[in-house]
Amino acid sequence: MIKTLSSHWAIGLKWVFKTKSDEHGHIVKHKAWLAKGYVQQHGVDFDEVFAPVARLESVRTILVVAVAADIYFHDILYDFSNSTSNSTSTVVAKPTALLQSMNTSVLGMMVVFNGPMTEGKALPPSLEETTVRAQGLYFYNKKQTPADAWFAFSVVFNSTGNRGTLNVMGEDLFSEKTRDLSVVGGTSDFFMARGVATLRGDAIEGFTYFRLQMDIKLYEYYV
Amino acid sequence: MIKTLSSHWAIGLKWVFKTKSDEHGHIVKHKAWLAKGYVQQHGVDFDEVFAPVARLESVRTILVVAVAADIYFHDILYDFSNSTSNSTSTVVAKPTALLQSMNTSVLGMMVVFNGPMTEGKALPPSLEETTVRAQGLYFYNKKQTPADAWFAFSVVFNSTGNRGTLNVMGEDLFSEKTRDLSVVGGTSDFFMARGVATLRGDAIEGFTYFRLQMDIKLYEYYV
Amino acid sequence: MIKTLSSHWAIGLKWVFKTKSDEHGHIVKHKAWLAKGYVQQHGVDFDEVFAPVARLESVRTILVVAVAADIYFHDILYDFSNSTSNSTSTVVAKPTALLQSMNTSVLGMMVVFNGPMTEGKALPPSLEETTVRAQGLYFYNKKQTPADAWFAFSVVFNSTGNRGTLNVMGEDLFSEKTRDLSVVGGTSDFFMARGVATLRGDAIEGFTYFRLQMDIKLYEYYV
Repeated sequence: MIKTLSSHWAIGLKWVFKTKSDEHGHIVKHKAWLAKGYVQQHGVDFDEVFAPVARLESVRTILVVAVAADIYFHDILYDFSNSTSNSTSTVVAKPTALLQSMNTSVLGMMVVFNGPMTEGKALPPSLEETTVRAQGLYFYNKKQTPADAWFAFSVVFNSTGNRGTLNVMGEDLFSEKTRDLSVVGGTSDFFMARGVATLRGDAIEGFTYFRLQMDIKLYEYYV
Repeated sequence: MIKTLSSHWAIGLKWVFKTKSDEHGHIVKHKAWLAKGYVQQHGVDFDEVFAPVARLESVRTILVVAVAADIYFHDILYDFSNSTSNSTSTVVAKPTALLQSMNTSVLGMMVVFNGPMTEGKALPPSLEETTVRAQGLYFYNKKQTPADAWFAFSVVFNSTGNRGTLNVMGEDLFSEKTRDLSVVGGTSDFFMARGVATLRGDAIEGFTYFRLQMDIKLYEYYV
Repeated sequence: MIKTLSSHWAIGLKWVFKTKSDEHGHIVKHKAWLAKGYVQQHGVDFDEVFAPVARLESVRTILVVAVAADIYFHDILYDFSNSTSNSTSTVVAKPTALLQSMNTSVLGMMVVFNGPMTEGKALPPSLEETTVRAQGLYFYNKKQTPADAWFAFSVVFNSTGNRGTLNVMGEDLFSEKTRDLSVVGGTSDFFMARGVATLRGDAIEGFTYFRLQMDIKLYEYYV
C-alpha cells in the first residue's frame, strides 16, 4: 500500500534521536538541524576537532523509505484498431506505417502513457481519476520479442497523503525477473528525492494491456 | 534575470570568512577549503564548538542558487503547415497521419525542441543565437485538452557568465498554476548540480506558439 | 578499458579494516556496518570518538571511479533502405514521410538504439551479445547539419566484473569537441550512482554509422 512519507520521517527522526543519545548535551542543536534538514557532508579531510560531523549525517537519512510498495501500474495501449475510450497510452508514430516499412519487430515503437497506479491488481473504476498516476514514455529497443523497454516517466501523487512527483528513468530488461529503474528527482512532498523503482511484470494480455508491479524506495530526500 | 553562480559564491565566501574569525588557528585549512570553493551553510547559529560543523556542511550548500530566475522559454512549433523558417520545434511523427489514425486528441504527440530562453518576454532578434537555450523533448499525455505534457531537456548556457548544461525532466501538470520539474544533473559550471525548475505558462498563441516562465533553483552542486 | 568497481570496493574495504584496527571494541558493530556496505571515508584519521562519523560519512564517497574509460559506443542506424540484419538503432517515425512533409533537415528525427559498447574501436563479432550495451534514444534538435543531438539512455553492464545499469541524459553539442552528459542514477553495482559521461565523436560513416568514444566517471555512489 502507499505509505505517507510523514510516517517514515517518524522513523528517521527516531534514528536521529538514537544517534543523539550517543552524544551529550547537544539535543537542542540537534533539533534545530533536524528542523532545517541538513544534507549529507562529503569528502573533507579532518581531525578530532570535527566530531560534530556525525550529527550532520543525520541530515540525510539512510533508512529506506518505501513510498509505494506493491503498487500496480496499468497500461492499456491504443493500438490504432481498438477503441481509444479506455486506452491509457498510444504510440507516438502510426505503427502500421512504421512497422510495415521496417518489416521487423517492435524495435523503435515508442509509447506515451498516462496510466493509473493502484494498490490492488484490479483496474480502477475510473481510468482518468486516480490519486497516483504514471505519466511518461517507454519504447522497445530490442529486435527479439518480448523486447526490452526503456522507461522515463513521472509518478504523480495527488492524494491527501502525498502530493508531488517522482521522476524515474531506466532500462526494463525483460529477461530479468525484476528490473531496477532510477528515481532521479522529486518535487513537493518528495522534494529532491532519489532512489530506486523496482518493476516486475505482473500480467500481459496480448498487445494492448500489461500490468507492472512496482516498488519505489527512496534513499535520499530532504526534510 | 540570469544570475551568475559566482555572485552567490561571493556571499558564501564572506560567510566562511566570518566563521573563520570565530575560530583560532585553523586559518590555513580554511583557506584550503576555500580554494576548493566550499560555502558556509545558511542559518546555522555557530559557536566555536560548532564551527567545524559549518565547514563540513559547507561542502554541500543549502543556500538556494537561482541560476535562472524569471527567464522565458519560447516554443514555435512547426506544425507542417506554417513555415519552418522561424520554428524552434517540430513533431517527431507526421501528426496528420498520426492524429487522423487516432481520431483523438494530441495525446501521444511528441515534439522535439531547441528553443531560445530570454530574460524578457520578447522573442530574441535571432532565434538561432541566444546565450541560453532549452534543447529536448516534450509530449502530451492527456486526452483532454489543454493536455498535460512531459518534458525532458537540457538548459544549455553559453554566455560569459555561465557555460554548461542543466538536465531537467518531469511532468508539466497543466491544471497546476506552477509545475516543478527536477534538475537531475549538470555539467561544467553546473557540475553535478541538482535542483528544481518551476514552470508557469506565460502565453499561448494557438497551436504554434507558447511561452513558459521558468525559475531554476539549485539545492546541490559541487564547486 | 573498463575497470571493475570491485577493485575500488577492495580499497574501500581495506580502508574499513584499517580503521577498525584503530578503534577499540567496535569490531562487531563495524562488521554490521560492513554488512550494510558502509565504507570508510578517504583521508579520515579515526579514533573512538569518531566511530559514528565513520559509519555515517561512509555512505557517500567522493573518490572518482572511472567506470568506463575509453569505451566505444557503436550506432548502426536502420534508415529504412539498408538491411535491418545488423542495425542497432531505428527511427521512431518513418523518416521519409516525416522529412518529406518537413522539407527540412533531420531536426526532429528520433532514434531508438540498443548498441554495443566495446573496449576497442572494432565492431564486436556479435552485435547482439556484448557485456556492455547502451540502450535508449537520441534525437536531432538543430536545423543545420551536423545537428546537435539529445541523448537519454542506460548503460547496461552484464559482465562478471559489473552487473547493473547507469542512467544518462544530456545534450550532445556537436560543436564542442567533447560533450558532458549527466549520469543521474544507477542500479545494482552502481546503486545510486551519479557522475558525468563524456562523449567524443570518433567516427562517422555517412548516415548509417557513427562511433562515440565515451568516458564515464562517478562522483557519488553507495556501497
